[in-house]
Amino acid sequence: MLIEYSDASAEVRAIYEDIMTTRQTDYINNFWKTLAHDPATLRRTWEGVKEIMSPGALDAVTKEMIYLAVSTTNQCGYCIASHTVAARKAGMTDEMFAEVMAVTAMANSTNRLASGYQVVIDERFKG
Amino acid sequence: MLIEYSDASAEVRAIYEDIMTTRQTDYINNFWKTLAHDPATLRRTWEGVKEIMSPGALDAVTKEMIYLAVSTTNQCGYCIASHTVAARKAGMTDEMFAEVMAVTAMANSTNRLASGYQVVIDERFKG
Amino acid sequence: MLIEYSDASAEVRAIYEDIMTTRQTDYINNFWKTLAHDPATLRRTWEGVKEIMSPGALDAVTKEMIYLAVSTTNQCGYCIASHTVAARKAGMTDEMFAEVMAVTAMANSTNRLASGYQVVIDERFKG
Amino acid sequence: MLIEYSDASAEVRAIYEDIMTTRQTDYINNFWKTLAHDPATLRRTWEGVKEIMSPGALDAVTKEMIYLAVSTTNQCGYCIASHTVAARKAGMTDEMFAEVMAVTAMANSTNRLASGYQVVIDERFKG
Amino acid sequence: MLIEYSDASAEVRAIYEDIMTTRQTDYINNFWKTLAHDPATLRRTWEGVKEIMSPGALDAVTKEMIYLAVSTTNQCGYCIASHTVAARKAGMTDEMFAEVMAVTAMANSTNRLASGYQVVIDERFKG
Amino acid sequence: MLIEYSDASAEVRAIYEDIMTTRQTDYINNFWKTLAHDPATLRRTWEGVKEIMSPGALDAVTKEMIYLAVSTTNQCGYCIASHTVAARKAGMTDEMFAEVMAVTAMANSTNRLASGYQVVIDERFKG
Repeated sequence: MLIEYSDASAEVRAIYEDIMTTRQTDYINNFWKTLAHDPATLRRTWEGVKEIMSPGALDAVTKEMIYLAVSTTNQCGYCIASHTVAARKAGMTDEMFAEVMAVTAMANSTNRLASGYQVVIDERFKG
Repeated sequence: MLIEYSDASAEVRAIYEDIMTTRQTDYINNFWKTLAHDPATLRRTWEGVKEIMSPGALDAVTKEMIYLAVSTTNQCGYCIASHTVAARKAGMTDEMFAEVMAVTAMANSTNRLASGYQVVIDERFKG
Repeated sequence: MLIEYSDASAEVRAIYEDIMTTRQTDYINNFWKTLAHDPATLRRTWEGVKEIMSPGALDAVTKEMIYLAVSTTNQCGYCIASHTVAARKAGMTDEMFAEVMAVTAMANSTNRLASGYQVVIDERFKG
Repeated sequence: MLIEYSDASAEVRAIYEDIMTTRQTDYINNFWKTLAHDPATLRRTWEGVKEIMSPGALDAVTKEMIYLAVSTTNQCGYCIASHTVAARKAGMTDEMFAEVMAVTAMANSTNRLASGYQVVIDERFKG
Repeated sequence: MLIEYSDASAEVRAIYEDIMTTRQTDYINNFWKTLAHDPATLRRTWEGVKEIMSPGALDAVTKEMIYLAVSTTNQCGYCIASHTVAARKAGMTDEMFAEVMAVTAMANSTNRLASGYQVVIDERFKG
Repeated sequence: MLIEYSDASAEVRAIYEDIMTTRQTDYINNFWKTLAHDPATLRRTWEGVKEIMSPGALDAVTKEMIYLAVSTTNQCGYCIASHTVAARKAGMTDEMFAEVMAVTAMANSTNRLASGYQVVIDERFKG
């Protein structure tokens, strides 16, 4: 299922190299090695991730924590495991992780209270 | 459906006052005015939000942006509207909002690629 | 969009009549009047609902509260509105509603804590 | 946990036989062998699947691909594994699988952009 | 990853003791032993669960079944495993479990029919 | 909130023109007019949609129906409304729409039965 560098086409190898250069690592995640079965999706996804996750108005660790909060909400096991590691590498401490989890849990809770109680949107919150 | 301050019990009024003091505002959202139908849930939810959302290892705007990312993932209309306003009040600029949205959208996308392709978790990502 | 009794085919009318008889009402919800565009889905869905929601090991109000908890979790506006009314008709009091909401919110919260913290399943919880 | 044919009641055996005949196989999935603990749900679910998944206005492979896209969105591990196999059996090629994944990922992404940006529904899209 | 009683701080031990006393058991789930990495979330979550899950207008088994229905909807493996056991301990029989599953499955189905068909909310269902 | 062509920057105008040319229409959806607040996300999202949704191994209507099934599962009101129209334009008939809905509803149902019953993955379904 995993396409290793040595078995990859030139197109896929070029993307693997860009991943390794950008991330300053010689390791390619299983996510990319699996997506390599569809080079178009591999390329599009990697280019999107590269563009979106590089520091901008938000720094890298903030972006990784948002990624983790979304993955946790969606219960994606692979994504939780990989983005927890990525967020820690970007600077997330134990205390920051604990707060990401607490906010994620609270938001999932109040999202349902708002819907279940059919809360009407306040005039001042309208666009 | 909304319980106004003037109609609230002493128990509910005390919580409304704590919300207004903590947030330095004289405005109570419809969310709280609706939850007031169940004072136990109003109190527990408010105390949780107050504890979790106050600055700690993460600052207020980072927490609000995570809240917004989760609410967006869950498609909760009320929560998106109210936490967009709250995040802006805490300092989220247009550029930061755009990046929260981009990360949230990307995470929702790759969460499904990881699951649908049945990507196996890398040894190094295991706890 | 709504197919009224007077405009319905014989097949659809028969289902409407079964709904009215079973529920002892002369009112057909918009849900059924919309599904009537596909008589096969109307029939299959109604027969499923009729079979599942009639009292068995669980009574009618318990079933309606579970329905409401799921609909709230999924953020389905129509379903929350209609099943809140249905649950109240089946005997759900204000206190019971408040507890359904509290349990639903708590479960949505701990579901994410369990996933995000990558909690390992206890041996004794394995099937 | 699995109820094998040899241990099944007459009612369950009859359903297993219908599954094997309809699918032209002598294999019963664990899904059905587990649902057999509740013969009413086994019967109702099988009859629904049989009715819905047989070719109609959409052919079998299209239906299986939609099933896979939904299961991927919901992150249901069992369903992704079983419906990937079912879709391939119905004719889904590697290229088709890659496109199902790409569309599913993109839809999950834009669903959140539409909600998070609070996009107002265009007049021409209203029913 | 698991913080055992013998390794826990005084603060965490006090919560473990309250869990064991309240539940009349000497067993602490992995969920709590993992949350113990963040004593504030451990305490807040346990106090919320204790308050919400104790019998009130709804009895314990009804609350556990609602918890299970939500966890099933969210596809949380840990929560499904642990709350199935908890619900059985609180009195859920095989027949009751089967009905919880049937209602949960049906609600998840009709939630999508209501949304996909864009069913308009009936006047009488408005708050 | 909506950025009209006449008020758009050159960068945004170029994308609007590509949308109109590709889709052979002079109409730009509110989705794009809203995303235009972040030209980078507008461009990346449009290029992704254009690449993914053009006919390939799957034809346009199949892709639109998968998009609709995912949007329905996620309960995204805007996306359901817009992709129902898009799918119809691409050739989805009333019968096809009814089958998309039936498959989507069934998948959402069996996804939860598989999870709630903790069905073990069959050896033959493993990758």
